[in-house]
Amino acid sequence: MDRPPDLRAIREAHARIRPHVHRTPVLTCSALDRLAGARLFFKCENFQKVGAFKARGACNAVFSLADDEALSGVVTHSSGNHAAALSLAAARRRIPAYLVMPSNAPQVKRKAVAAYGGRIVWCEPTLAAREETCARIMAETGARLVHPYNDYRVMAGQGTAALELLEEVGELDVVVVPVGGGGLLSGTALAAKGLKPGVRVVGAEPAGADDAWRSFKSGELQPMPNPETVADGLRTALGTLTFPIIRSHVDDIVTTSEAAIIDAMRKTWELMKIVIEASSAVPLAAILEGRLALAGCRVGIILSGGNVDLDRLPWRP
Amino acid sequence: MDRPPDLRAIREAHARIRPHVHRTPVLTCSALDRLAGARLFFKCENFQKVGAFKARGACNAVFSLADDEALSGVVTHSSGNHAAALSLAAARRRIPAYLVMPSNAPQVKRKAVAAYGGRIVWCEPTLAAREETCARIMAETGARLVHPYNDYRVMAGQGTAALELLEEVGELDVVVVPVGGGGLLSGTALAAKGLKPGVRVVGAEPAGADDAWRSFKSGELQPMPNPETVADGLRTALGTLTFPIIRSHVDDIVTTSEAAIIDAMRKTWELMKIVIEASSAVPLAAILEGRLALAGCRVGIILSGGNVDLDRLPWRP
Repeated sequence: MDRPPDLRAIREAHARIRPHVHRTPVLTCSALDRLAGARLFFKCENFQKVGAFKARGACNAVFSLADDEALSGVVTHSSGNHAAALSLAAARRRIPAYLVMPSNAPQVKRKAVAAYGGRIVWCEPTLAAREETCARIMAETGARLVHPYNDYRVMAGQGTAALELLEEVGELDVVVVPVGGGGLLSGTALAAKGLKPGVRVVGAEPAGADDAWRSFKSGELQPMPNPETVADGLRTALGTLTFPIIRSHVDDIVTTSEAAIIDAMRKTWELMKIVIEASSAVPLAAILEGRLALAGCRVGIILSGGNVDLDRLPWRP
Repeated sequence: MDRPPDLRAIREAHARIRPHVHRTPVLTCSALDRLAGARLFFKCENFQKVGAFKARGACNAVFSLADDEALSGVVTHSSGNHAAALSLAAARRRIPAYLVMPSNAPQVKRKAVAAYGGRIVWCEPTLAAREETCARIMAETGARLVHPYNDYRVMAGQGTAALELLEEVGELDVVVVPVGGGGLLSGTALAAKGLKPGVRVVGAEPAGADDAWRSFKSGELQPMPNPETVADGLRTALGTLTFPIIRSHVDDIVTTSEAAIIDAMRKTWELMKIVIEASSAVPLAAILEGRLALAGCRVGIILSGGNVDLDRLPWRP
């Protein structure tokens, strides 16, 4: 795929990945509605395969490959949810997945990948080492790179969550999703605007990792050297392919504080009785902090994932 | 209601409470199925109003009252999920609810009751003081007692969860539910056997609070002086009305260890991404500990509730 996916491409992605991912439920919570002063519809990608929406993009990329392309496998240098998602997708297509990981990657991430049969390739914990190792594996094995977000097939896959959300709940005034590398936000914007041109699409970002907000406001990609946030899935910077789509299709990006993220995460656990990771709580945090004018609106929120280390909860004293 | 509820009474309860409670979803988890070697269907009463199945029994009791009976309100001496449930039910009927609580009841329980407008009446932290205070309120106000489990209307209400579960998933070989005072277990047995006489009904109990297991095996009510278990909802003993129903309608009671309960609770959070309280994890704990022969069976489990103090998790080091 050599150009941004349109609604048709996202629908094709949806049909392609349907046998391999869950159609996740949309939940509501009257207590959170009261706090927000709006009607909230939560698309529960924390219940998705591998515990995150990343299963959608990875499956679409892997199942978009022609047979001869797929034969030698796929490779990525992400160590988070995308690594587990790519392992799952490759396992379902019965091809190898190579996951380049820094030698200091936490045990819990190693185990997630190993559980799906991904092959971990260790490297030094620097960006240069990760990219070199990735390139070496591509050269040696012929494996195809599946970037975690800077890839149109991945964006199309991520857009299928918004497609299901809008099909299920009908009219929405706004859709709010977390933004890290921008794969989910660009896919959501393309799907939502394609399906319902009147719906607003807003990205929510931790103030401590606000490269997307600064890039969006200035009109120039502004990577951030040392992002700091509890929302570890959102420390990545926008990509060269996601940024132009976000500039032209997203209505706004808002930021939110660390305290608000932890509070929104905890409220979701306590009131909705579901486990979400900190990154998933960023849209609700921005809403409860009053960063969007939503009084009386119908608001879609994509809960991006539920992978949490239960021994290291952010509110732990 | 002066005799044990039959299937018809449970269906009537279901119609009576429908406007006031959620029809909770049934979730499955392939990872837990693999660990159990069986097909598990989880009825998610952690998503129920007030975060527990207790909303069903309390609503059935309150809405079963004639108008002149209801006028003076309802009272109970439970301080757990039943207190919040009775507060909710009374609020919906616009009658007062009096909740007798020991002066050392945790803040979180006070807040749950207060949130629904229940009136807390403090007493000394002894069983005698709670019963005396309860009797005094009944005499002074004319409020009707709604016991947390030793009440046929409450049992009928609790049985509606199994009714929905069996209607939704069809044939089941076994239904396993936690047992404390026996309201859920007796209601489940009456509903399940009434609907599908062939289904086995099993109670699961912490070994540290095994009065139901000992009563069931010996044929005589054996209250326990000092139950000790992390499953705080199951520290109560069987009642004089629940025990005979359990003796005649339940197939077996099994016990499980504290370590297994904590492990099953944590696995449910990690793999299903849902928040359940320790009491809810007792059936899965018994299954994963091998206390039931279930190979290849279709097994229904009622997840009784999701009210947890996130600052005091049992696996916290």
